Amino acid sequence: MSLDRGVVAELEAIVGAEHVRTAPGDVEPYTRDATPVFRGVPEAVVFPRTAEEVAAVLRLATRHHIPVTPRGAGSNLCAATVAEHGGIVLVLTRMDTILEISPDELLARVEAGVSTAALAEAAAAQGLLYAPDPGSRTVSTVGGNVATCAGGLRGLKYGVTRNYVLGATAVLPTGEVIRTGGRLWKDVAGYDLTRLLTGSEGTLGVLTELTVALLPMPATTGTGVAYFGGLADAGRAVSAIISDGIVPATLEFLDAKCIGAVEEYAHLGLRSDAGALLLFGDDGPPDVVERNLERIGERASATGALEVTLAESIARSEALLAARRCALPALSRLGTLTVLEDATVPRPRIAEMVDRIDEIAERHDVPMATFGHAGDGNLHPTSVVDQRDEAAIGRVHKAFGDIFAAAIQLDGTITGEHGVGAAKRDYLEARLGSDQLALLRRIKAAFDPAGILNPGKLGS
Amino acid sequence: MSLDRGVVAELEAIVGAEHVRTAPGDVEPYTRDATPVFRGVPEAVVFPRTAEEVAAVLRLATRHHIPVTPRGAGSNLCAATVAEHGGIVLVLTRMDTILEISPDELLARVEAGVSTAALAEAAAAQGLLYAPDPGSRTVSTVGGNVATCAGGLRGLKYGVTRNYVLGATAVLPTGEVIRTGGRLWKDVAGYDLTRLLTGSEGTLGVLTELTVALLPMPATTGTGVAYFGGLADAGRAVSAIISDGIVPATLEFLDAKCIGAVEEYAHLGLRSDAGALLLFGDDGPPDVVERNLERIGERASATGALEVTLAESIARSEALLAARRCALPALSRLGTLTVLEDATVPRPRIAEMVDRIDEIAERHDVPMATFGHAGDGNLHPTSVVDQRDEAAIGRVHKAFGDIFAAAIQLDGTITGEHGVGAAKRDYLEARLGSDQLALLRRIKAAFDPAGILNPGKLGS
Repeated sequence: MSLDRGVVAELEAIVGAEHVRTAPGDVEPYTRDATPVFRGVPEAVVFPRTAEEVAAVLRLATRHHIPVTPRGAGSNLCAATVAEHGGIVLVLTRMDTILEISPDELLARVEAGVSTAALAEAAAAQGLLYAPDPGSRTVSTVGGNVATCAGGLRGLKYGVTRNYVLGATAVLPTGEVIRTGGRLWKDVAGYDLTRLLTGSEGTLGVLTELTVALLPMPATTGTGVAYFGGLADAGRAVSAIISDGIVPATLEFLDAKCIGAVEEYAHLGLRSDAGALLLFGDDGPPDVVERNLERIGERASATGALEVTLAESIARSEALLAARRCALPALSRLGTLTVLEDATVPRPRIAEMVDRIDEIAERHDVPMATFGHAGDGNLHPTSVVDQRDEAAIGRVHKAFGDIFAAAIQLDGTITGEHGVGAAKRDYLEARLGSDQLALLRRIKAAFDPAGILNPGKLGS
Repeated sequence: MSLDRGVVAELEAIVGAEHVRTAPGDVEPYTRDATPVFRGVPEAVVFPRTAEEVAAVLRLATRHHIPVTPRGAGSNLCAATVAEHGGIVLVLTRMDTILEISPDELLARVEAGVSTAALAEAAAAQGLLYAPDPGSRTVSTVGGNVATCAGGLRGLKYGVTRNYVLGATAVLPTGEVIRTGGRLWKDVAGYDLTRLLTGSEGTLGVLTELTVALLPMPATTGTGVAYFGGLADAGRAVSAIISDGIVPATLEFLDAKCIGAVEEYAHLGLRSDAGALLLFGDDGPPDVVERNLERIGERASATGALEVTLAESIARSEALLAARRCALPALSRLGTLTVLEDATVPRPRIAEMVDRIDEIAERHDVPMATFGHAGDGNLHPTSVVDQRDEAAIGRVHKAFGDIFAAAIQLDGTITGEHGVGAAKRDYLEARLGSDQLALLRRIKAAFDPAGILNPGKLGS
């Protein structure tokens, strides 16, 4: 299928001919995002530069009932930016201007296509912290982070992207440009559309500009590591730390399989005999960080850690953080197709959930290693198989279905930070219930009467 | 007008006859909230005990097209809980059970009618802080706080109510009971209905249960006060403090008229010759608090403070906080009708906004004193007049219209924490624009097709 030649001409008139691509070779890079297996071929890839251009494209799409899939860097992990129904992929990466960093107001104003890392660097240059730090931050865009409510390693202490969005400019599918929120920490005039757009995965509107909150840069950061015989002990340590009144900036875990894979990959000197590794870190004034790390270490020891080490240097601290950050690449080496998930459970149930994951993996005969954010119960069970082995891929998907069901049973959810997209929409009703899903679809219709914007994603 | 006798019988069958009131004397306390002037007489006041009872009442109301106004303690300041169209006032205060406080998970689960103070006390008893602290917290309910996204004195460092709601049980106007969010810090399965309900002023659903995040109780708190010749100097001090990398827990201001009124009322020993008072406070480890207060004091001195005093005792600290907390009662003594507003502007524009407020008050010949949250630009211009003086009341409302317009002009908003309700809906379009207001109404219809739930409030 291809777009009517007249439609292509209209698109070219809106954004300029050089910013519309329709040739198969030009379109190919935009047929996938970072999700394995899922693929969709758009008829056109369009690169707008302004909200007004986005509005004109959306008006055109609504008029002709053409599906539009908005996209930032395409680092999405749940196929939320795959053009399942063809149509137009709307790539926001030309809108990459940092409009303002205000140390006085503790905020930044950026176009949606600015990369998360670029924002963080521009803020840091003025002594400020942009707190959300998703794993994809070096490539992902701020618009994409907001559209998916991206998480990261600092969720427990600092919260996720939603806590930092102060205002948004969004283009509705029918072409209206609305401005929600603004430069204010407190604003209750109207429904909280800023937060409704956050995490809506491009199904309600196209984000073109964001105002986000910044924080003073903490004076220092510190890191430590504790090894445990198993995840049950590590889980008890996490509970003991939190109950002791400490909310660390970082509290990450790796199971035995991840420890092995990481050590083989990066040779960081990790203990190979441990059943679980807990990485902890804090930031703030040096004396506070030192005190907190010592208390965390004591709690870990008291709950049966095999060994606790505080990083004595920034270099060692970075090496420990690298152990966590390279868990995914280390695991990915074990095959040619990596399925990374993010089922989430209440913090005290992590060990129980990992037991369930291991049991499910064994039952379905799939390899599975789990790491994740112990502080907020956000698990990343990861399965790596051969991309040509369709039977194995089928078993992996069945296993994840069971994992999502187990997470829901433990008061958890099917996705903590990646999103629903196309990959998890079949599990959404089990999480939300049919009444809430029906309401979600009525809300979608209130924004997008023609149903052109990322149709079907997120259960919409 | 009165309800059909059959409808009253149905209501009595749902909640029990003793929990339905229809006699004019019994209904009278529910004809007003804390907003002056606004009044509406319901035909029935209903006190449900469970979400299922709420659902049955709402199904009945939808079937018979009877307006329903949900209400907690009735401490609302924008007439959001006044039954303008009669019908049923649904009072949630019988649902007052604290279901759970979890030190391990750092969360509480409460029924909607639990008072904010009761929640805060139950949390404190376990060494935990419920951070939102609206001025009305001793009477207001958690459900009401969430429905209005209540703010308070700790907004800059701790954020407002929306930052603490993890999950909600809500009854839709059509009777479905939905559960949004849950016990998780990270959950992106579906649209963020938790946040959409937060601040929706009872127009989208009736909140019956909330799960909220708690924090470890800070080890200590400290307070200081700085006097300035005028608000421009105080504003410069606020900018200097924030730019110095400190985000204080408390940063409040009083203008000269407020200082005078408070001193006359409470005899706290405040300087009567100052043009502005800045109250600052922080919490955390004792050494950090001491250091931060000293740095704040230095910044204040460097930007021209007439005098800076750090409270040397907890008693003195509480006295200083009382100066801010009693600003409203102190001003209220000056007449019989108090109009308290909450226009909000970006932090660096506070002094400019207070100048505008004073100019507007003079032009309309109304008394006006302003205090508020300097940290987040949330101003409380307050006008106190004689409740029998209709001409004066008319001038006050005209003045506030001009104040809202000025706030919007300065990139601010018509309400930072009180809400829109009936009192400010005429100003909502100026803040949101007609496209966003139209969208808001389509969202309302997605929740409430019959339009029975708090109709007309918040511009819905």
